[in-house]
Amino acid sequence: MEQNRTEHMKLFTLNSNPALTQEIADYLGIPIGDSSIQRFSDGEVQIVIDETVRGEDTYLVQSTAEPGNEFMMELLIMVDALKRASARSINVVIPYYGYSRQDRKARSREPITAKLIANLLEAAGVDRVISVDLHAAQIQGFFNIPVDQLKAHWLIADYFKKKQLNDVVVVAPENAGTARARKLANELDAPIALIDKQRTEKDEMVLGQYIIGDVEGKTAIIIDDMIDTARTITAGAVALKEFGATEVYACATHGVLSEPAIERIRDSELKEVVITNSIQQAPDKQDERITVLSVATLIGEGLLRIHNNESVSKLFG
Amino acid sequence: MEQNRTEHMKLFTLNSNPALTQEIADYLGIPIGDSSIQRFSDGEVQIVIDETVRGEDTYLVQSTAEPGNEFMMELLIMVDALKRASARSINVVIPYYGYSRQDRKARSREPITAKLIANLLEAAGVDRVISVDLHAAQIQGFFNIPVDQLKAHWLIADYFKKKQLNDVVVVAPENAGTARARKLANELDAPIALIDKQRTEKDEMVLGQYIIGDVEGKTAIIIDDMIDTARTITAGAVALKEFGATEVYACATHGVLSEPAIERIRDSELKEVVITNSIQQAPDKQDERITVLSVATLIGEGLLRIHNNESVSKLFG
Amino acid sequence: MEQNRTEHMKLFTLNSNPALTQEIADYLGIPIGDSSIQRFSDGEVQIVIDETVRGEDTYLVQSTAEPGNEFMMELLIMVDALKRASARSINVVIPYYGYSRQDRKARSREPITAKLIANLLEAAGVDRVISVDLHAAQIQGFFNIPVDQLKAHWLIADYFKKKQLNDVVVVAPENAGTARARKLANELDAPIALIDKQRTEKDEMVLGQYIIGDVEGKTAIIIDDMIDTARTITAGAVALKEFGATEVYACATHGVLSEPAIERIRDSELKEVVITNSIQQAPDKQDERITVLSVATLIGEGLLRIHNNESVSKLFG
Amino acid sequence: MEQNRTEHMKLFTLNSNPALTQEIADYLGIPIGDSSIQRFSDGEVQIVIDETVRGEDTYLVQSTAEPGNEFMMELLIMVDALKRASARSINVVIPYYGYSRQDRKARSREPITAKLIANLLEAAGVDRVISVDLHAAQIQGFFNIPVDQLKAHWLIADYFKKKQLNDVVVVAPENAGTARARKLANELDAPIALIDKQRTEKDEMVLGQYIIGDVEGKTAIIIDDMIDTARTITAGAVALKEFGATEVYACATHGVLSEPAIERIRDSELKEVVITNSIQQAPDKQDERITVLSVATLIGEGLLRIHNNESVSKLFG
Amino acid sequence: MEQNRTEHMKLFTLNSNPALTQEIADYLGIPIGDSSIQRFSDGEVQIVIDETVRGEDTYLVQSTAEPGNEFMMELLIMVDALKRASARSINVVIPYYGYSRQDRKARSREPITAKLIANLLEAAGVDRVISVDLHAAQIQGFFNIPVDQLKAHWLIADYFKKKQLNDVVVVAPENAGTARARKLANELDAPIALIDKQRTEKDEMVLGQYIIGDVEGKTAIIIDDMIDTARTITAGAVALKEFGATEVYACATHGVLSEPAIERIRDSELKEVVITNSIQQAPDKQDERITVLSVATLIGEGLLRIHNNESVSKLFG
Amino acid sequence: MEQNRTEHMKLFTLNSNPALTQEIADYLGIPIGDSSIQRFSDGEVQIVIDETVRGEDTYLVQSTAEPGNEFMMELLIMVDALKRASARSINVVIPYYGYSRQDRKARSREPITAKLIANLLEAAGVDRVISVDLHAAQIQGFFNIPVDQLKAHWLIADYFKKKQLNDVVVVAPENAGTARARKLANELDAPIALIDKQRTEKDEMVLGQYIIGDVEGKTAIIIDDMIDTARTITAGAVALKEFGATEVYACATHGVLSEPAIERIRDSELKEVVITNSIQQAPDKQDERITVLSVATLIGEGLLRIHNNESVSKLFG
Repeated sequence: MEQNRTEHMKLFTLNSNPALTQEIADYLGIPIGDSSIQRFSDGEVQIVIDETVRGEDTYLVQSTAEPGNEFMMELLIMVDALKRASARSINVVIPYYGYSRQDRKARSREPITAKLIANLLEAAGVDRVISVDLHAAQIQGFFNIPVDQLKAHWLIADYFKKKQLNDVVVVAPENAGTARARKLANELDAPIALIDKQRTEKDEMVLGQYIIGDVEGKTAIIIDDMIDTARTITAGAVALKEFGATEVYACATHGVLSEPAIERIRDSELKEVVITNSIQQAPDKQDERITVLSVATLIGEGLLRIHNNESVSKLFG
Repeated sequence: MEQNRTEHMKLFTLNSNPALTQEIADYLGIPIGDSSIQRFSDGEVQIVIDETVRGEDTYLVQSTAEPGNEFMMELLIMVDALKRASARSINVVIPYYGYSRQDRKARSREPITAKLIANLLEAAGVDRVISVDLHAAQIQGFFNIPVDQLKAHWLIADYFKKKQLNDVVVVAPENAGTARARKLANELDAPIALIDKQRTEKDEMVLGQYIIGDVEGKTAIIIDDMIDTARTITAGAVALKEFGATEVYACATHGVLSEPAIERIRDSELKEVVITNSIQQAPDKQDERITVLSVATLIGEGLLRIHNNESVSKLFG
Repeated sequence: MEQNRTEHMKLFTLNSNPALTQEIADYLGIPIGDSSIQRFSDGEVQIVIDETVRGEDTYLVQSTAEPGNEFMMELLIMVDALKRASARSINVVIPYYGYSRQDRKARSREPITAKLIANLLEAAGVDRVISVDLHAAQIQGFFNIPVDQLKAHWLIADYFKKKQLNDVVVVAPENAGTARARKLANELDAPIALIDKQRTEKDEMVLGQYIIGDVEGKTAIIIDDMIDTARTITAGAVALKEFGATEVYACATHGVLSEPAIERIRDSELKEVVITNSIQQAPDKQDERITVLSVATLIGEGLLRIHNNESVSKLFG
Repeated sequence: MEQNRTEHMKLFTLNSNPALTQEIADYLGIPIGDSSIQRFSDGEVQIVIDETVRGEDTYLVQSTAEPGNEFMMELLIMVDALKRASARSINVVIPYYGYSRQDRKARSREPITAKLIANLLEAAGVDRVISVDLHAAQIQGFFNIPVDQLKAHWLIADYFKKKQLNDVVVVAPENAGTARARKLANELDAPIALIDKQRTEKDEMVLGQYIIGDVEGKTAIIIDDMIDTARTITAGAVALKEFGATEVYACATHGVLSEPAIERIRDSELKEVVITNSIQQAPDKQDERITVLSVATLIGEGLLRIHNNESVSKLFG
Repeated sequence: MEQNRTEHMKLFTLNSNPALTQEIADYLGIPIGDSSIQRFSDGEVQIVIDETVRGEDTYLVQSTAEPGNEFMMELLIMVDALKRASARSINVVIPYYGYSRQDRKARSREPITAKLIANLLEAAGVDRVISVDLHAAQIQGFFNIPVDQLKAHWLIADYFKKKQLNDVVVVAPENAGTARARKLANELDAPIALIDKQRTEKDEMVLGQYIIGDVEGKTAIIIDDMIDTARTITAGAVALKEFGATEVYACATHGVLSEPAIERIRDSELKEVVITNSIQQAPDKQDERITVLSVATLIGEGLLRIHNNESVSKLFG
Repeated sequence: MEQNRTEHMKLFTLNSNPALTQEIADYLGIPIGDSSIQRFSDGEVQIVIDETVRGEDTYLVQSTAEPGNEFMMELLIMVDALKRASARSINVVIPYYGYSRQDRKARSREPITAKLIANLLEAAGVDRVISVDLHAAQIQGFFNIPVDQLKAHWLIADYFKKKQLNDVVVVAPENAGTARARKLANELDAPIALIDKQRTEKDEMVLGQYIIGDVEGKTAIIIDDMIDTARTITAGAVALKEFGATEVYACATHGVLSEPAIERIRDSELKEVVITNSIQQAPDKQDERITVLSVATLIGEGLLRIHNNESVSKLFG
C-alpha cells in the first residue's frame, strides 16, 4: 500500500466488529485509531478519543447487530465526539445495517425504523455511509448523504464456483428474493426455483411449503440476504429434500444467527451454510457447518478508493 | 355524506386527474375548489386560486404520470401558493407516484429520483402524502411526513373473484413480484407461478423466458404494480401460452401505457387487461380489452377518515 | 377529574416506568394507551400501537435510565411510529433525562451526549419534552422545542419539613450544588455547608475531603440531583460524622443507584436516603433505608395543565 | 489556458444550452463531461453519468427556458445524481433563470415560484448558483448559498458603442427599468426616456402609451432584461416613432421569444433586436434582424475565477 | 368588535411602536398583553412576560427602525421566549421592515441583510410576518413562512384625493419607482414625471438632476416608499420648481427621517410631507409640515381577518 | 511565525475588540483584513469588505459586550457577507460570549437567549466558534458546530502565583462557582471558602452574607467568571474583611464593568481586580486598581493550531 493513499485517513473501531476492523486496517496498512468505548457505572457510553482528529477524514466501523441498540448509540455518540473534535469528514462503515427489515410500514402505526436510523445518523453529523448488501436497495434513498453500497454476493458466487457442484438449482427462500436468486444462478449457469410459503389470512401461521420449479436430483443452494433464526433455510431444506433435492446449501451475506439458529442448523438437512463476517460471531455461534467469508478486502479496497476519489463502481459488480 | 365531516376541507385538482378528482368530490359531496392552472406565453405554470384557503385543510389530487415533469412542477408551484396563502394543511393525493422505479441506485452515479421527489415535496411545504400502491413500500420511508398508502389490489382481487374463473394460477411477471402474486393467489385460492427472464451479462438483452411452476391447462393472471410499455405482460402471455395456459389475463394498479402499449395489447394473446384510474387515460389509450376500475371511493373514503382523524387501517387491507 | 380536560389526550408507556405511568394515568383518570414493545429475535425493538392516534395529543413516559441505550431507542422508535401514524402532537415525558452528566466537553474530543440526545429526539419528531429536575438547567437550551422542567425538590423539602428535624445543616456534596443546597436550606430555615473534595492533578484520585462550614452537633442533609454509585453521599457521610455531625441524611431527585450503590448505602453512616420514582427501581434495589417519593401527581398535574394550555409556572416552584 | 487552472473541474451540459456549453468548454480548454440525458418510455428523465465525479468540482449549464419544467427537472435530477456520486461541489450555471417574473406575490394566493425554485435547488444539493442578469437582483436573496450574478449589459453597451449611432436616447420600456436605462445611457452618454403605459383599473387592458421625455429626431434604444412575446418592444417602437424617433433598436439579455415574438419583430418598426445566447434559440426563432451576442467568454472567465478562488467582481461591471 | 373574533388572540408590544400598538389594541378591543422589556445593567435585553401564552396566537408589533439593531434583538428574544412558553403561533407585525434597502448585493462582498433578517426571524421561531409596503415586493420571497403585506398607499391616495389639488403630476424620485408613481397617478387621474439623477461613474456624486416629463405649471407630488435623510425629496423639489412646478408635495409610507431630515424639510420648497406612523416619531421629529396618517385600522383589520382565517386580499388593494 | 502556517488565513475585526484583534494579528504575523463597518444614516450597519475572501478561511473577532445588540448584529451581517462572498470557512472568535447568563429558563416564559444567539449564528452561516471561558460549559452544547473553548484561568493563576501572596484562601462569590474556586485553589495550593448570600423568598433582596469556611487572617481571592456591576465582589470584600480577611483580591476573565462598577471598585475594600481584555474597556473604565491580562497569545496560538489542524487540547489546560 502506498503511503500517500492513506494520508489524512483515520480508522476507528467500536465494539461490534473489532476483528473485521483489524483486517481492514491491515489491508490499508494503517493502525486503528486510539480510542476506547467504556461504560459509566450506570451503563452510559463513555467515548474517549486519544489522538487528534482535527481536519482528518475519519472512518468508523460498526455493525448494528445484536445488541443493536447499544451499538447504535455507541455509533451516534462517537460521531458526535468526532464532529465536535473538528474531524474533516465522518464516514461510517456499517457492514450490517440493522433494523433494515423495518424499512416500510407493514401494518398501520408501525415505525419505519430503518429510516429513523438514517435520520439519526444524519442528525448526529455523519457525512457518508458505506454498507454491504442492504436488505432493500431503497434504503440508500433514506439518506440525503452519499451511501456506497458494496456487494458481497460475488464473494459468495466465487466460493460456490470453486466448489464445482453438479447440477445446481438456486432457490429463492420465500415469496421474495427471486431477483437475488436469478443473479447467483446467472453466475453458476443454473436454473432457479422458489419456495412458496402459504400463510393463514392473518399472516400468523405457515400453512405449508411448496417448491415451485424443478429441484429433483439437483444440488440446491438457498440464497437470502440474511439468516436470522434459520427457520426459513432449515424448513426450506426439509421441503427441498422432500421434492427430491440431493443436497442443500444455504448462503447469505449477513449471519444474524439469533437463537436458536445454531441448534437449528446443527439439527438440519443443510450441508453447509455460507455467510460473511459483516457481523462478528461470538465463539458459541461458530460451527463447522458454517463457513465465514471475509468482507475485509472488499471494504478496505472500497475505503481506499473512496478516500482517493476513485471510482468504486468496479466493486459494485 | 354528513355536512360536518367535510368542514374545513378544500379539494383542488390540477391537470393530471380532473375526472378522478370530480369522482372524489362527488363521493365527498363537496365542490372542487376554484382554481386554474394556466401557462404564461413561454410555458411557465401560472396558478390562480380564486377562493380563500386561510386556515383550511387543503387536498390536491395530482398523479405524476406523463408528462410527469410538467405535472410535478404544477404540483410544487400549487403547494407553494397554498403555503403562502396560509392554508392550515396541505395534503397531496398522488394516485400514481411517478419516478418510482428510480427508487435506488441500480448503477453507479444514478440519481434516486423517487427520493428527490420526496425531498422536493417536503421543501415546497407538503404536510402529508396519500398515494395508492407505491412501487416499493420503502418509498414511504423517503418522507419525514406521514404517508398514507391506500391499497388498490383488493379492488382487483374483487373484480377477478366476481368473474369466477376456473383453475386459476397467479403469475409473477419477472424475477420479482412473487409476494404480490402470492397475495392475490391467497384471495383467489390459487397457486402461483413465475416468469423467469434470463438476460445477457450486461442486462442488455433478454435471452429467453421460462415459466417456473405449473400453468398447463390453467387460466393465468399476470399481476404487476404498473404496466408501462406492456412488453412484460405481452411477452409473458406468449410464454404462458407456450407452456400450456389456456387463457391469460393481466392486471396492475397503474396503467402507465406508454407507446406502444396499446398496440401491443391489441396484438397480444391477452384476453383482458385490468387497471385503475390512478392515471387518467387519453381517449386514444382506451381499448375494449382494457378494463379500468375506479379508485375514487377508496381515495374519497380515505380522505374522509384522514380529515376526521379516524383510522385508515381498514382501508389498508 | 373532569372528562373534558383529558379530551384528545393519549398516554402511552414504554418499558422504563410502567408503574409511574399507571399512577399518572390514575391521576388523569384515563387508561394507558394500547401498545406493546416487543423484541424481534435479534433484539431489535418492535413497536405495536393498537389504537388509532390520528389527530390525538400523545404523551409518552420513558426515563432513559439503565439500560439507557435500550430505553432511548425504544423512545425514538415509538416517536417515529406516532409521527407516521399522524398523531397531532408527540409529548415526551422523561422523568429522568439520562446522559445528562455528559452535558459539556470536560476534555478534548468528548461528545456532548446530552445535546446529541436532544437532537435525536427532535430529529425523530418530538414536539415537547417534559422532564423533572434536569442535571443542568442549560439542558433546556439544547432543545429548540419547548421543554417544561418540573421541579421535584419541593417534594423533598416538604418531606423533610414534616420530619421536624432539629438543628439542620444542608450540605452540598462536592464542589458544586451549593445553589441547590441553599434552596433547600431556605425552605428548612437552615445554614449550609460544603464538602470540599480535593483531587490529584489529573483528577484521578480523591486526596481527601474537608467540610467547609459548621456541622458540629447538627443533623446534616446532603442534597444532590442524582445518586449514582452512592460513593459521594456515603463518603460524605463519613466526613460529616468526623466533623461532628450527629446524623446524616441524603436526598436526590433521581435514584440511579448503579452497582454498588445499595451495598454502600446499607454499610453507610446514612440514616435515610430520600429519592423519587423518576427512575423505577428493580426489587433488588429497594431497601428500608431508602424512601421513595412519587412524582406522579407532579407530572400528572403538569400534563393536565399543558394539555389544557394552562400555566405550569405554579408547579415550577 | 494553463492546465492547472482547470484541475478538478468537470463541466456538464444538459439539454437547454449545449451550444453555449461547448463554447464555454472551448474557452476553458476542457472537454464536456461524459453524460447523457435520456427519457424512459413514459417520459421520465434518465440521467447517465459515464465518468467518475468523486471529489470533483462539477459545473452544470442549464437555462430554465421553455420547456422550463422539463429543464428544471433535468437539472434537479442531475444534481441528485452528482450528490450521491460524491461530487465535491455542485455549481449550477443558469444563464437564464426562469420563472423569475414570479418573484413576488402580485395578487393574493399566488406562488412565489422564483423562490420555490431556489428552495428546490438547495434541497437537491446545489452548492452555488451562477447566473446572468437576474430579473430582480433580490433573487440572489432567495438563496442561502452563494449566487454569482454575471452582468451581460456591458456586452450590449459595447455592441452599441461600436455602432456609433448618432443622437441616441435610451428608453425604459414600461413603468419600470429606468435604472437599467440610466446605466446604458451613462455608457452611451445619452439621455433617457420612458414609455408610460396606462392600464385600466383591473390591469387588464392597456389604455395607451405615452412617451415621457424627448425622443424627437433621435435614435431610440429600448432596453429590457428579457424579451418574451415582443409586444412591449414592438408597441413601444410604434409609440416612439409617433413621438418622432427616427430609428428604434431594442435590446435585452434574455431572448425568451415566445410565440408570436418572431412574427411581431418581423412586422415591426424595429431596426434591430440585440439579445444574448443565454437562451438557445431554435432555428425557426432566428432572424436577420436579431443579433445574438455570446455570453460564453463572460461565463467561462467567471467559472475560471470562481474555481480558482479569484475575485469575480471585475466581471460584475 | 364581537368578543369571539379575538378569542385566543394576544397582542404584545415591544419598544418601537407602543403608540401604534395601543391604537391597534383599541381597534381590536383587547388589552395589550402584560409584558415588559427591560435591560440588564450591561444593556442586554430582559424580557418578562407576565401572563400565560400557552396555546395562544400571539401577535407582536415591532418596527425595526432606528435603533434597528436594538429593536431587532428585542424582537428575536421575545420570539424565543414565546416559543419556549408554548405559544400556539407567533405572528410578527413589522410595520416598517428595516434593512430593506440591503435586499441585494449591489457590490461584491456585500451582505443581503434583508434576507439575513428573514432567516433570523425564522430561526427564532416566527410563524408569520405581517408588514406594510415592503421596499421590494421580492422580500416576501426571502421567507418560507407566509408574509402578509398590507398596502398603505391607498391611505395616501385617499388623503390626496380629499385635498382636491389641481393639475397634478406624480413624480418618481430617482431612476426607480415609476410603477409606484403610475399607481398613485391612476388614482388621481394624473400624468407622471421622473427625476433623472445622473451620477459620476463610481456612483459617488450626483452630477445633476433633470426632470423627464412635463411639470410646468403643475402641482407635483413626489412619491417614494420611505423618506430617510430627505435629500432626495428636497433636492427633487428644487429641481421641480426650476422646471416650473408651482407647488411640491412629497409622500411615502415610511418616515425614517434620519438626521438631518427635519432641518432639510423645514428649509425646503416642500409644501407638505405625508407619511404614516409605521415608524413612531420622537417628539423632536414632528413638524407642522409633516402629516402622519395612521396605519392602525389597516393593521388591526388585517390581524382580525388573519386571526379568523378570512381573506385579506381586500386589504391588499 | 512561519509563513505557511497562516496560508489562506484571513483575520477580520469588527467594532468590539480592535485592539485585541491587532495583538492577535501581530502574534500571527498577518495584517488585519481590509474591511470597514459603517452606519447608514439611520443607524443600519453597512459592511464593506475590500479584498477577496473566496476560498479563504476567515476569522472574525467580536465580543458581544455592551452595546451587545449592536455588536451581535454587526457580527451576523458580516457573516452573511462572508458567506455570500464564498469564504471557505467562517470562524468566529467571541472572546466574551454575551447574553450567557440567560442560558436557562430561570422563570416561566423567559427566553434562553444564549441558545437563541447560537441558533442565529448558525443560521447566518458560522462554521466554528472560538470563545474564552464560557459562563456555563453547557453553552458549547447549544451549538451543532464545533466550539473551541479556550481557558483563560491559567493566565490568572499564573499572575497570582507570581505575586507570591501568603496564606491565601480562594473564595467562591455566591452560592455557585465553587468548582472554579477549587481549580484556582489547587494551583495556588490553598483552601477555599464560600460567600453564602441569603435572599428573600422572591429573590428580590439579599438578606445577608455569611462566609462559610475559614478566612481569618488570610489573603482572600474572590474568583468569578465575569464582573458586571461589581456589587458581588465589593460586597463580598466587605464581608470577607468582617470575617477577618487581611486583604481581598478579585479576579474574573470577563470585565463587563457596567455602571457603577468603576465607582464601586474605587470605593471598595478590594486591593486589586484582575481581568482580561476579552472585553475592550473604554478609557473611562480603566483604573489603577484594575489589572488587565491579555488573551491575545492564547487566542492567537489557538487560531494557529485550529487553522493547521493541530490539537488545541494543550491550550485547554
